[in-house]
Amino acid sequence: MKRYRREDENSYALGITLTFELLKFAPKQARKIYIHSKMQEGESLDRLKELAGSLRVPVEYGDKPFNILSQKENCFCIGEFEKFNRPLSKDASHVVLHNPSNAGNLGTIMRSAVGFGIKDLAIIKPSVDEFDVKTVRASMGAVFHLNIRLFDSFDDYLKEYGNRNLYPFMLKGRKNLSELEFEKPWSLIFGNEATGLPDSFLNIGTGVVISHSDNIDSLNLPIAASIALYAATRKDFGKGD
Amino acid sequence: MKRYRREDENSYALGITLTFELLKFAPKQARKIYIHSKMQEGESLDRLKELAGSLRVPVEYGDKPFNILSQKENCFCIGEFEKFNRPLSKDASHVVLHNPSNAGNLGTIMRSAVGFGIKDLAIIKPSVDEFDVKTVRASMGAVFHLNIRLFDSFDDYLKEYGNRNLYPFMLKGRKNLSELEFEKPWSLIFGNEATGLPDSFLNIGTGVVISHSDNIDSLNLPIAASIALYAATRKDFGKGD
Repeated sequence: MKRYRREDENSYALGITLTFELLKFAPKQARKIYIHSKMQEGESLDRLKELAGSLRVPVEYGDKPFNILSQKENCFCIGEFEKFNRPLSKDASHVVLHNPSNAGNLGTIMRSAVGFGIKDLAIIKPSVDEFDVKTVRASMGAVFHLNIRLFDSFDDYLKEYGNRNLYPFMLKGRKNLSELEFEKPWSLIFGNEATGLPDSFLNIGTGVVISHSDNIDSLNLPIAASIALYAATRKDFGKGD
Repeated sequence: MKRYRREDENSYALGITLTFELLKFAPKQARKIYIHSKMQEGESLDRLKELAGSLRVPVEYGDKPFNILSQKENCFCIGEFEKFNRPLSKDASHVVLHNPSNAGNLGTIMRSAVGFGIKDLAIIKPSVDEFDVKTVRASMGAVFHLNIRLFDSFDDYLKEYGNRNLYPFMLKGRKNLSELEFEKPWSLIFGNEATGLPDSFLNIGTGVVISHSDNIDSLNLPIAASIALYAATRKDFGKGD
């Protein structure tokens, strides 16, 4: 066992909660469960072992993987999984991230996307590793619900999935989010944390701005993406009294 | 000089961008500027020194404060400021955070609040330090635009500022965010990252839920707070073609 690197075939879900998410929602990807000697015996662990057994996922005891893989002191369970690369749905709405650079942000966006019913995520390279252990952790397991595809360029994405309404989010966007009616299927497109989307996206689809006060330069990327996801799906999630 | 602690009178803005925010938006709080020997000479530094000079804020050269205060390798400028405690506006809308526990999350919520025009933040203790250097950094300087007050209990907040519409955000909330018309002045109330708001808040004001799919347990706290802020202020930030 060695420290995780992007080119590895497998990545890791750190902690028992994430490992449950792996076994429940991406059971075919699960390769092995590691249990630390300090892991508390009890109902949770019994359920985990039972689930792993029914899926024929081996369980290994020992502390060494934890020294290598986890920097958190209270992580006593790790789920190893084979990384996956599933095609996106052509009919569904997508989130497209252009050059995302922060693993935690990427995971947080995954969590919001799944929260608002979006299952398809396109990432335009260069980008942070979509299976970085920090991404997996920040996603709180949402990564296991997603179809994720990487593309060398936005043109490559368009060639395969371009037959849809495109909404690039830019400070220079013409339309205000709060006035927009989204038409399905759509793709919400977001740029890099520091630089946003290149100006070339002004010629693509309908540019959208989330208007805010002049007292901040911009909204944080996962915040902007989540507000957009909320606004684009709010009619699908209506309930209440 | 010693490592920052919550009981200190002063806190620190790490980096030149944050230090500019301090000098521009909370000039009366600024106490000292520290410049590292590796700080690049040039227009930015000249402007900073000019601004500090005009405000009579002393500038000190030396690397030692950086070893103590900053864990980031590329931080070559620190702004020291006296912490502040300004009363909230009784007429304005507020954000209320009940027992927030994560410094980065708190700063991110500050950034979104200021982004959507809210200047008043109430925090119900126990809570993370509102002037933790991580909070200040995650706020991207928004902290310097805010009136922030800490309260020992939510009742204490109500006694002073209760004459308003209260919207606690809870998974058990009766109203769906997307169906709600907010009436000003309001307070949007959010619970702790792990535990949310106590059930006692079900009897307060109008409980609101941000509906999402069953595939996630909850939205990340700053995401939920920012979506709520967007929805509650969207009519104030309408622009576009």
